[in-house]
Amino acid sequence: MDGKLGKKYLDNYGKKVKPLLNSYLDSKIRETTKINKYLAELLKHIKKLSLRGKRIRGALTTLGYEAAGGINHKEILKTSLFIELFHTGILIHDDFMDNDDFRRGVETIHKHFEFIGKKLSIKSSPSHFGNSMAINAGDIAHFLSFDILSNSNFPPQYVIEALNLYSKFITRVVYGQTIDITNISIKRKSKKDILSVLRYKTAEYTGSLPLLTGAILAGLTDQKRLKNYHNFGLAFGWAFQIQDDILGIYGKEEKLGKPVGSDLTEGKNTLLQLYLSRYGTQEQKAFQDKVLGNENIAKKDLLKMQKVLKDSGAYERVVNLGWKYVEMGKSLIPEITKDKKLQKTLESLLIYMMERVR
Amino acid sequence: MDGKLGKKYLDNYGKKVKPLLNSYLDSKIRETTKINKYLAELLKHIKKLSLRGKRIRGALTTLGYEAAGGINHKEILKTSLFIELFHTGILIHDDFMDNDDFRRGVETIHKHFEFIGKKLSIKSSPSHFGNSMAINAGDIAHFLSFDILSNSNFPPQYVIEALNLYSKFITRVVYGQTIDITNISIKRKSKKDILSVLRYKTAEYTGSLPLLTGAILAGLTDQKRLKNYHNFGLAFGWAFQIQDDILGIYGKEEKLGKPVGSDLTEGKNTLLQLYLSRYGTQEQKAFQDKVLGNENIAKKDLLKMQKVLKDSGAYERVVNLGWKYVEMGKSLIPEITKDKKLQKTLESLLIYMMERVR
Repeated sequence: MDGKLGKKYLDNYGKKVKPLLNSYLDSKIRETTKINKYLAELLKHIKKLSLRGKRIRGALTTLGYEAAGGINHKEILKTSLFIELFHTGILIHDDFMDNDDFRRGVETIHKHFEFIGKKLSIKSSPSHFGNSMAINAGDIAHFLSFDILSNSNFPPQYVIEALNLYSKFITRVVYGQTIDITNISIKRKSKKDILSVLRYKTAEYTGSLPLLTGAILAGLTDQKRLKNYHNFGLAFGWAFQIQDDILGIYGKEEKLGKPVGSDLTEGKNTLLQLYLSRYGTQEQKAFQDKVLGNENIAKKDLLKMQKVLKDSGAYERVVNLGWKYVEMGKSLIPEITKDKKLQKTLESLLIYMMERVR
Repeated sequence: MDGKLGKKYLDNYGKKVKPLLNSYLDSKIRETTKINKYLAELLKHIKKLSLRGKRIRGALTTLGYEAAGGINHKEILKTSLFIELFHTGILIHDDFMDNDDFRRGVETIHKHFEFIGKKLSIKSSPSHFGNSMAINAGDIAHFLSFDILSNSNFPPQYVIEALNLYSKFITRVVYGQTIDITNISIKRKSKKDILSVLRYKTAEYTGSLPLLTGAILAGLTDQKRLKNYHNFGLAFGWAFQIQDDILGIYGKEEKLGKPVGSDLTEGKNTLLQLYLSRYGTQEQKAFQDKVLGNENIAKKDLLKMQKVLKDSGAYERVVNLGWKYVEMGKSLIPEITKDKKLQKTLESLLIYMMERVR
C-alpha cells in the first residue's frame, strides 16, 4: 500500500469542492463590493489563499462522514468548506505573528495591505495598516467558517453536536498558537510545551476535528466508535505534522509556497529540533543554538542543519516516529468503518501524509 | 420616563450574571493553568476585561428573550454571556488596531504583554509579542463565545437559528471594523462609509443582534415581529453609538476607562465629526482637519473641539438625532411585547442609552 489512492481521493475532493468554494466566496465578494472596495479586496485575498489549500482537512471531513455511513454527499461537500475557511483564518493570523511574507505562493495579507498602504502613502504606518487588515481578514475567515457550519442542512441536533466539538477544538488551536509564540519569544524549550503546541495546533485539529465532525454530521453517537475516530485522527495529525517539520527543512520552496528554512529563522520548536537538542553532540547543539531563531542565517546554515539533523539521528528518529503513527492509525481503521474501499482510502491517505511533498 | 428603570434592569442583570461569568472563565483559567502559565495569564486578562463591561448587550439578550415570552430565565442568563465574551474579543482586536493603551480602566492586552516581553527581555520585539498575544486573546474570546452559544440548552432548532443570525451579524461587525480602519488610515470621508461602519460595528450589533438572539431562543419565528425587534434594536444601537461619540469628546476618563479625546487622536469618523465637516464654517473645518487624527493634540485642542462642535451646531444635531432614534424605538415597543412592565423597561433602557455617562 502507498499514498496514491489517498492522493487520488484528495485530488478528487479538491475538484468537487473548488466550484463550491468559488461560489461561496464570490457571493461574499459581490456583497462586500457594494459596501467598500478595500473590504472587497480583503475578501478577494481570502479567496485567493483559500483556493490554494491542500484541502486535507476538508477531505477528512467527507471521509469521516462516509466512514460513519453518511449518504448526503452533496451536503457534506458543501459543509466541509467550514474547515478550509477556518484554516485560512488561522494561517492569516499565524503569518502575522510569524512575520511571514508568503503563504501558499502568494503574498500574506499583512504584506499585501502594507504594500497598498505604501502606495497610497497613508499617514499611519503602512505596516500597522497591513497588520490590522490581516487581523480583520482572519476574523472574517473564522466567522465565515462558523457561518458555513451552522447553516449546514443536517439535522439540527447533529449540527449542534458538531458546533460544540468545533468550538472546543478551535479554542485549543489558539491555546497551541499562544504557547508557540510564547516559546519562540521567550525561548523556552520545555518538552511538554512543544508537544502541547503540536497536539493542539496540528494533530487534534488537522486530524481529529475534521474526521469527527464528518462522523457526527452522519449521526454517529456511539462514544466508543467516536473515540476511535478521535485517535485515528490524532495519529493522522501527528504524521501530518512530522512531514510538515521535515518539509520545512528538506522541502522545495516551489512546492511549499513559502521559503524553506523559515522554521529555522522563526525559531520554531519542531520535533526535529526537540530531538536534536536531546540526542545531538555538544557541538551539534551549539550549532542549533546559533542557528535556531536567527533571522540572518545563510543558505549554507540551512544545508548544514540538514546534515546535522541527519548526523545526530534526529531526522531518522522523527521519520520513524511518523511511520509509527501511520501504523497506529492503520490498526484503528477496522474500528472506523467496515467498508473495504473506505478502509483502503483511509490507509492510503494516512500513508500519503508521510509521502507528500507539499 | 427617564433611564432609571433601565439602569436598574442593567445593574440587576450585571449582579446575576457576574458569578456566571466568573465561574465560566475560572474554569478556563484552571484548564489553561495546567497547560502553560502565559496562556493562563492571557485567560486571566480576558476575564479582567470581561468583568468590567457595561453589559448592555447581555441585558438586551435577556430582555429580548423575556419580551418574546421566554420563561427559562436561568438558561438565558447563562447563554447571554456569549455576547459579552464576543464583545471582549472585538475590543481586544480593536484596541490593537487603534493602538490603545487602556480599556475599561485596565491595560489593553497588547500593552500588558508588551510589558511582560520587556521584563523578560525577549529577543524578538516586545511589541510584536504583545500584539501577537492580543490576536490570540481576541480569537480565544470569540471562540469561547461560540462555545457558550452553541452549548446552550434551548431546543436545537432555536439554537441553530440563533447561531445563523450570530454568524451573519458578527461577520458584518468585522466588515465595519475593516471600513473603519481603512477610512482612518486612508483618510477617506465618504458619508456612506461612515454610516456603514456605525451601522455594522455598533447599531446592528449592539442593539439588533442581542435582542433578536433572545427572541429567537424564546422560540419567536413570526417574521413581522422579528422585523420589529430588529428595528427597535437598530434604533437602540444608534442611540448607544451617538452617546458613545458624545462621551468620547465630552465624557470623563474615570467613567470611560480610557482617555477622553482618543477618538480625536485616532481620527475616528464619528457622527459629530461628520456633521462638523458638513455644517461647520471654513475656519471650523480647517481646525477639524488640523486636529482629527493628530496624535499630538493638546488638552486645549480637545477643549476647543468641544466648543467648535457646539458652536457649529454639530453637537446639537447629533444629540437631536439620538433622541429621534429614542422616539423611533419607543414607537415600536408595543409591537415588541404586550407586557406593560417589560415595555417600561425597554423604554427606560432606551432612554438610558442617551443619559449614560459610561
